[in-house]
Amino acid sequence: MDKRSLRVAVLGCGSVGSQVVRLLQEQATDLEARIGARIELVGVAVRRIDATRDVEVPDGLLTTDADGLVARDDVDLVIEVIGGIEPARSLILSALEHGASVVTANKALLAEDGPTLFEAAEKAGRDLYYEAAVAGAIPILRPLRESLAGDKVTRVLGIVNGTTNFILDKMDSSGAGFAEALEEAQELGYAEADPTADVEGFDAAAKAAILASLAFHTRVTASDVYREGISEVTAADVQSAREMNSVVKLLAICELRAVAGGDDAVAVRVHPAMIPRSHPLASVREAYNAVFVESEAAGQLMFYGPGAGGAPTASAVLGDLVTVARNHLAGTRGVGESAYADRAVLAMGETRTRYHVAIDVDDRAGVLASVALAFAEHDVSIQTVRQEGRGDDAQLVVVSHEATDAQLSATVEHLRGMDNVREVTSVMRVEGETE
Amino acid sequence: MDKRSLRVAVLGCGSVGSQVVRLLQEQATDLEARIGARIELVGVAVRRIDATRDVEVPDGLLTTDADGLVARDDVDLVIEVIGGIEPARSLILSALEHGASVVTANKALLAEDGPTLFEAAEKAGRDLYYEAAVAGAIPILRPLRESLAGDKVTRVLGIVNGTTNFILDKMDSSGAGFAEALEEAQELGYAEADPTADVEGFDAAAKAAILASLAFHTRVTASDVYREGISEVTAADVQSAREMNSVVKLLAICELRAVAGGDDAVAVRVHPAMIPRSHPLASVREAYNAVFVESEAAGQLMFYGPGAGGAPTASAVLGDLVTVARNHLAGTRGVGESAYADRAVLAMGETRTRYHVAIDVDDRAGVLASVALAFAEHDVSIQTVRQEGRGDDAQLVVVSHEATDAQLSATVEHLRGMDNVREVTSVMRVEGETE
Ligand SMILES: NC(=O)c1ccc[n+]([C@@H]2O[C@H](COP(=O)([O-])OP(=O)(O)OC[C@H]3O[C@@H](n4cnc5c(N)ncnc54)[C@H](OP(=O)(O)O)[C@@H]3O)[C@@H](O)[C@H]2O)c1
Ligand SMILES: NC(=O)c1ccc[n+]([C@@H]2O[C@H](COP(=O)([O-])OP(=O)(O)OC[C@H]3O[C@@H](n4cnc5c(N)ncnc54)[C@H](OP(=O)(O)O)[C@@H]3O)[C@@H](O)[C@H]2O)c1
Repeated sequence: MDKRSLRVAVLGCGSVGSQVVRLLQEQATDLEARIGARIELVGVAVRRIDATRDVEVPDGLLTTDADGLVARDDVDLVIEVIGGIEPARSLILSALEHGASVVTANKALLAEDGPTLFEAAEKAGRDLYYEAAVAGAIPILRPLRESLAGDKVTRVLGIVNGTTNFILDKMDSSGAGFAEALEEAQELGYAEADPTADVEGFDAAAKAAILASLAFHTRVTASDVYREGISEVTAADVQSAREMNSVVKLLAICELRAVAGGDDAVAVRVHPAMIPRSHPLASVREAYNAVFVESEAAGQLMFYGPGAGGAPTASAVLGDLVTVARNHLAGTRGVGESAYADRAVLAMGETRTRYHVAIDVDDRAGVLASVALAFAEHDVSIQTVRQEGRGDDAQLVVVSHEATDAQLSATVEHLRGMDNVREVTSVMRVEGETE
Repeated sequence: MDKRSLRVAVLGCGSVGSQVVRLLQEQATDLEARIGARIELVGVAVRRIDATRDVEVPDGLLTTDADGLVARDDVDLVIEVIGGIEPARSLILSALEHGASVVTANKALLAEDGPTLFEAAEKAGRDLYYEAAVAGAIPILRPLRESLAGDKVTRVLGIVNGTTNFILDKMDSSGAGFAEALEEAQELGYAEADPTADVEGFDAAAKAAILASLAFHTRVTASDVYREGISEVTAADVQSAREMNSVVKLLAICELRAVAGGDDAVAVRVHPAMIPRSHPLASVREAYNAVFVESEAAGQLMFYGPGAGGAPTASAVLGDLVTVARNHLAGTRGVGESAYADRAVLAMGETRTRYHVAIDVDDRAGVLASVALAFAEHDVSIQTVRQEGRGDDAQLVVVSHEATDAQLSATVEHLRGMDNVREVTSVMRVEGETE
């Protein structure tokens, strides 16, 4: 192979982009050895030319003309780290049309409109890689897409949002309420001033859509994902979990579910759930991420690491860059979108889950029987009931077996309307145990 | 792409091979969709034609003529799951020469003579993949080789042998001694009748060599790896660890180490070590494996899962098969051996480690001072000393700062010769903390 070079354009030079530019410079020799060609940075597109940056961008490379940069004929590789839907989408499409291979970290765009991008990549015969879009530095997409390609993945459980994990971990370790824990997360820079995207589960839902698509070879977009955030999680919920030797985590859950008389369907959801402390995901602390994968042959695997941050995310971007660059040189492509299985996606109501319900009740004879009856009426079978306290402090804690989410939420509504039920103090789904 | 098929030969049909054959049949439709061609099994080489097998091998495919099978011109892909050095090596070399791409799970062979195989693959323009050789089903080689290709890996700490982890976990949870825990492992099928390869660290050392080669782009073979097994680990050592809020694990350790005035060198070793219970590796229970990776940009990552077993290992083999098959169809190769960094490999004596030393001493005035002096004489600085008991039961527990292993072992020898030292009751290296 004669001495060659590949020309790369970086779109965006913020938290991630500045670290990408830094690593491209610092790792230049190693990158060249690993790719078999020199990487030449030819442009960095930003919004504000004069902003202060965390990296020194070589003279003359900064530009506000992103459109012009991706349309250049001499650009081989484009790294998109602007984020959001537009102009990121148009820029990626233009880059592919102009013959470049693309690496992006843009989960929002992929979860909303991945198929448009994948089709464009396919048509152009170029790669579109996006390891950094899910769980930052943790290699999870490549293992799902390649390492487990000979196996059948049946479930993915992920802690894929660092902000919410930090908050829930804080609530667990200190007994703090949600508001207090959020404030601390904001002070420490783990949560943004407007924390909605993280706290309400939008970020995790985008990642869940990407994980489910890859795991099950089926197109899943963010709108297919049932989503519940953590802002309603109370100190009482966390305490209740504690008493069950469990911990509350915001989980992205992607499952294959048997459907009577048909192919397995896909269920994808994001919500807080109790998991046993003995589960490997339970020990994921602070802002770390982890993805737990179950497959038929491999069994249970877990991938753990920093889920965000400029440098970790840039590491994932450059890992993709090396692969994409090698493919570009060899004139081939890596594994493209694989949606051949084309499975149905279940609505949340049809999805089977388990509930943990804590109820303040009047301590009268027969209250346990009437609560049990309420579950039975909705065809929900009870796994355990624990009765605590007496008189005014009487509490029932019920953990159900699996039932459809619709049945379970109907049961909770029913309980709320019952005479001898004072208050349903905590409702939470239970995960991480096989029945 | 027109309808094509790829012809695959499997060498060996034992624990792993039988599961490979099963998955090739059960996953045929998915494999075809993921590869873009049908996989056709054309032969399965074994030693004994008539042995009972865990899988039904289609009629006429079993053969004892492995040489003939790999020399067939119509074989595109060869899976080697016989194990050991010969005939595995000759068969792999012959397969490559005859134009096949190869997947193997053979850690012993790769660690002993990897470069010969890599050169043959390079020369033949074919792939040689071996994800299953390290940590069974856990995708670790692909992440190291590809996902982290844009980063600089600085350390790999692995629990890569399930048998020894089971034994040490048992010793920790029950207080049992080594012999008792080994017996239980044997009864449960976690240890073989002759447990030497596992218990004395040979298996882990082979994996350490493979991990270090990939992480540091340097050739490391099993003979470069310092190796100490767990047969000398006592209940007292485990108890001593417990008192430090630590746990004893057999670790495969691959590190990049600064060398005065030169390039970083590589240090590779396998030995039991104390790690803090708060370390992610500490919670790896029973026969599970996990690999902890530190890199400059990504930070700390961990990969966790079943490290052995027929089906998990077969999952890793088939993941490789899909990649290798796609490359074979496209007429390309994946990342081959990368030894460009060609770093020096440090001898154990030059490697910097930390020691935990427990000493029974005469409780006389000045004993602490004389012990401290012994450390100082060898230029080993002490991080903590704890003195426990009085009179006949007096014990000192010393944890050192980093020093060369040669200095540390000289210190221990020195202590053993001292008048007021009755016995050095426990010596163990300490890992998993940054100083
Ligand atoms: N931060 C993380 O930890 C993390 C982790 C995983 C994935 N990601 C993903 O990585 C991507 C980038 O995130 P980030 O945190 O680096 O964002 P950021 O810090 O807000 O940086 C965005 C960059 O894009 C530039 N930009 C914005 N609009 C532009 C336009 N119209 N044309 C050209 N440049 C434009 C900005 O320019 P100025 O600097 O001039 O304003 C800025 O440099 C997002 O998709 C995000 O989801 C981030
Ligand atoms: N077992 C695990 O959990 C595991 C995990 C990771 C990696 N690995 C690796 O996978 C490989 C296979 O391990 P395994 O546990 O499957 O071994 P195994 O159960 O002992 O099976 C070995 C197979 O090779 C066949 N064989 C032996 N010598 C042969 C020869 N000269 N020609 C043709 N066939 C021959 C045997 O035939 P017969 O059946 O006729 O005797 C048997 O089917 C090894 O490299 C091992 O290190 C194993």
